[in-house]
Amino acid sequence: MALIVQKYGGSSVGSIEKIRKVAERVIEACESGNRLVVVLSAMAGQTDALIKLSKEIAETPDSRELDVLMATGEQVSVSLFAMAVKSMGYDCRSLLGFQAAIHTDQIYGKARIRNIDTDRLLKELDKNRIVAVAGFQGIDEGRNITTLGRGGSDTTAVALAAALKADLCEIFTDVEGVFSADPNICTHAKKLKRISHEEMLELASLGAKVLEIRSVEFAKKFNVPIHVRSSFTRNEGTMVVSENKEMEKVMVSGVVFDRNQARITMVKVPDRPGIAFKIFDPVFKAGIVVDMIIQNTSAEGLVDLTFTVTKTDFQETLELVREVAKEIGAEKVLGDQNIAKVSIVGLGMRNHAGVATTMFEALSKDNINISMISTSEIKISCVIEEKYTELAVRALHEAFGLGDEKEKN
Amino acid sequence: MALIVQKYGGSSVGSIEKIRKVAERVIEACESGNRLVVVLSAMAGQTDALIKLSKEIAETPDSRELDVLMATGEQVSVSLFAMAVKSMGYDCRSLLGFQAAIHTDQIYGKARIRNIDTDRLLKELDKNRIVAVAGFQGIDEGRNITTLGRGGSDTTAVALAAALKADLCEIFTDVEGVFSADPNICTHAKKLKRISHEEMLELASLGAKVLEIRSVEFAKKFNVPIHVRSSFTRNEGTMVVSENKEMEKVMVSGVVFDRNQARITMVKVPDRPGIAFKIFDPVFKAGIVVDMIIQNTSAEGLVDLTFTVTKTDFQETLELVREVAKEIGAEKVLGDQNIAKVSIVGLGMRNHAGVATTMFEALSKDNINISMISTSEIKISCVIEEKYTELAVRALHEAFGLGDEKEKN
Repeated sequence: MALIVQKYGGSSVGSIEKIRKVAERVIEACESGNRLVVVLSAMAGQTDALIKLSKEIAETPDSRELDVLMATGEQVSVSLFAMAVKSMGYDCRSLLGFQAAIHTDQIYGKARIRNIDTDRLLKELDKNRIVAVAGFQGIDEGRNITTLGRGGSDTTAVALAAALKADLCEIFTDVEGVFSADPNICTHAKKLKRISHEEMLELASLGAKVLEIRSVEFAKKFNVPIHVRSSFTRNEGTMVVSENKEMEKVMVSGVVFDRNQARITMVKVPDRPGIAFKIFDPVFKAGIVVDMIIQNTSAEGLVDLTFTVTKTDFQETLELVREVAKEIGAEKVLGDQNIAKVSIVGLGMRNHAGVATTMFEALSKDNINISMISTSEIKISCVIEEKYTELAVRALHEAFGLGDEKEKN
Repeated sequence: MALIVQKYGGSSVGSIEKIRKVAERVIEACESGNRLVVVLSAMAGQTDALIKLSKEIAETPDSRELDVLMATGEQVSVSLFAMAVKSMGYDCRSLLGFQAAIHTDQIYGKARIRNIDTDRLLKELDKNRIVAVAGFQGIDEGRNITTLGRGGSDTTAVALAAALKADLCEIFTDVEGVFSADPNICTHAKKLKRISHEEMLELASLGAKVLEIRSVEFAKKFNVPIHVRSSFTRNEGTMVVSENKEMEKVMVSGVVFDRNQARITMVKVPDRPGIAFKIFDPVFKAGIVVDMIIQNTSAEGLVDLTFTVTKTDFQETLELVREVAKEIGAEKVLGDQNIAKVSIVGLGMRNHAGVATTMFEALSKDNINISMISTSEIKISCVIEEKYTELAVRALHEAFGLGDEKEKN
């Protein structure tokens, strides 16, 4: 008898009818001889409605109380789900964060799970009950309600699977799985049968919105196999699993892009020790994440320093950096929001030479200029002009033979 | 520094604007040098909306899960309230049933409070925080969420006041206090300045919908003074306090009525030992509350048995009793739904003779026929034809001089 953790997102439980469908699907898995823990998000729209309500009462709602408010969303879905299951003749219990003993730190709004005390969960499972756990929420040392931040239900599911040593964690979502590229851009994009946690991490952090990144970190750390699949079809989705030898044969698994990027260049910076710290310290202190950083020597004793941030942080960063530029006597600061980042990800890169060359060649063929490059062990990212995004994704997808016609997995 | 427990009902927190108003009023009480525990109900309409949702998912929603769902109503109000208070520059914490450690039995939907562990509450108060407690909810031994039933927030407030040994429990509602009669019927009805817990119990159980009856039982048991007052005005309301000598001078405090009454008569029942048990056993087993019972001898060895139930239970009771009538050989069963009960309540009755006579006289003057009478130490109730209800209330109100013109307290 396998133990399976299933997670259904907001769109999968967006109405009474959909909750009933989810209940049927869970019961089916139960009937096949499995024990089931089901993690649910708030009904679609609910979270936004609650945020709106909080903004009506206070411009900057208190973060502790915001978590108390937000946690009601999942409380509603799990209780309705449990009612549906029970009305179908199966035993079921809903558990909230404090009941499932999901202990977190005290960072309201984006708490991190520290540990899960599985006593209560196991007790309910031992009574042959389907256990419905409210996603996204936990409890801190002082028994205050915390929430894990947007997409936190994925993390709840993976963390539960890890704590319960579940055989599988199934993430049901509104897409069919993880694709070699965005199917809206590449009509030939192929659903990947299997990728590694490492690749999924790169894909998640690069903008593929299938799985919340922290959930993948958790899955990697505790070696939890995840099955990402659609809640609206019966098709097999994508298995996200521990790396194995077989996988390394594949050079590139997917192409992703991120339009939420902007570039800032500080021109002619006097090159002195500690200058980088001086420039980035106020940026980091403002909680802004800097992605790529490139430094070129421009003239004797002077350097140009270029880096990227999200478009969201662009204006604030520009102001901070202009301040610093004056202080340290840099010539000027330039900004550009018309950029995008395209990346290729694949375990095989480690052992295959020439992957970068193929990438650069494919882009140059279509006259796409590369303005920044960054690489990791299993990923290469290029910054290009934003208007070329789709073209670049299609060119790379084809260059690495990722499409439907050439089955690769 | 006094410790005050304040409770605001659903209509007092029915909108963002109203929640803000409540926050201002609470802060005002705080500024006057008091420590405040505030109990809130769900926003008006919320409870009904949640019940509707549950009925859509299951014809008979599971009672445990229904409580999980219902508890979100108060969770929303306390978190919004705490946000409002904090945005006004005062410290505040919301506590849910499990955090305030309101321990109940396990009867979902109408749980009873067993005890409250005040550690957390006192800790928050000691930090000079306003503490907002979700009304209506508690937690059972197994850490499941329970609810106290409709109007349960009154009970939460009084129980907290008792546990914390508060100086006062203020119940804010949409009426100005407890009146000598329904002001919609008696234009001269007077707001009572002060009544005893005992009187309030009789008034509550007889249909005055100001305070939930269990909260009054609690207040009586633990000697909690309650101030019932309007959340929309600054006027003094009614103090509900322990009985004292002064009070006994007042013969009658108020007149109440209950239209939700029906009468059933079993005619010519063979009078044998155990016959009453035989008749009422199935009724009690169906959870139906029988109010008045009267037995008359009609012919030799035969009796007529009349009793009242609520109109809501009338049909079911009739069917149960007709079954028994056949078994025991009674002649027939009659039913009448066109009845009402009018009652007078007052501590002074104990020591004043002639109260009943005055009541019967007042009714007979207006040609109102009395079909049943029942008395307790501090109350007399008469069953009359329903159409005479208002007339009877006015007649009694005048006969006992309860109106505005003749100040009595």
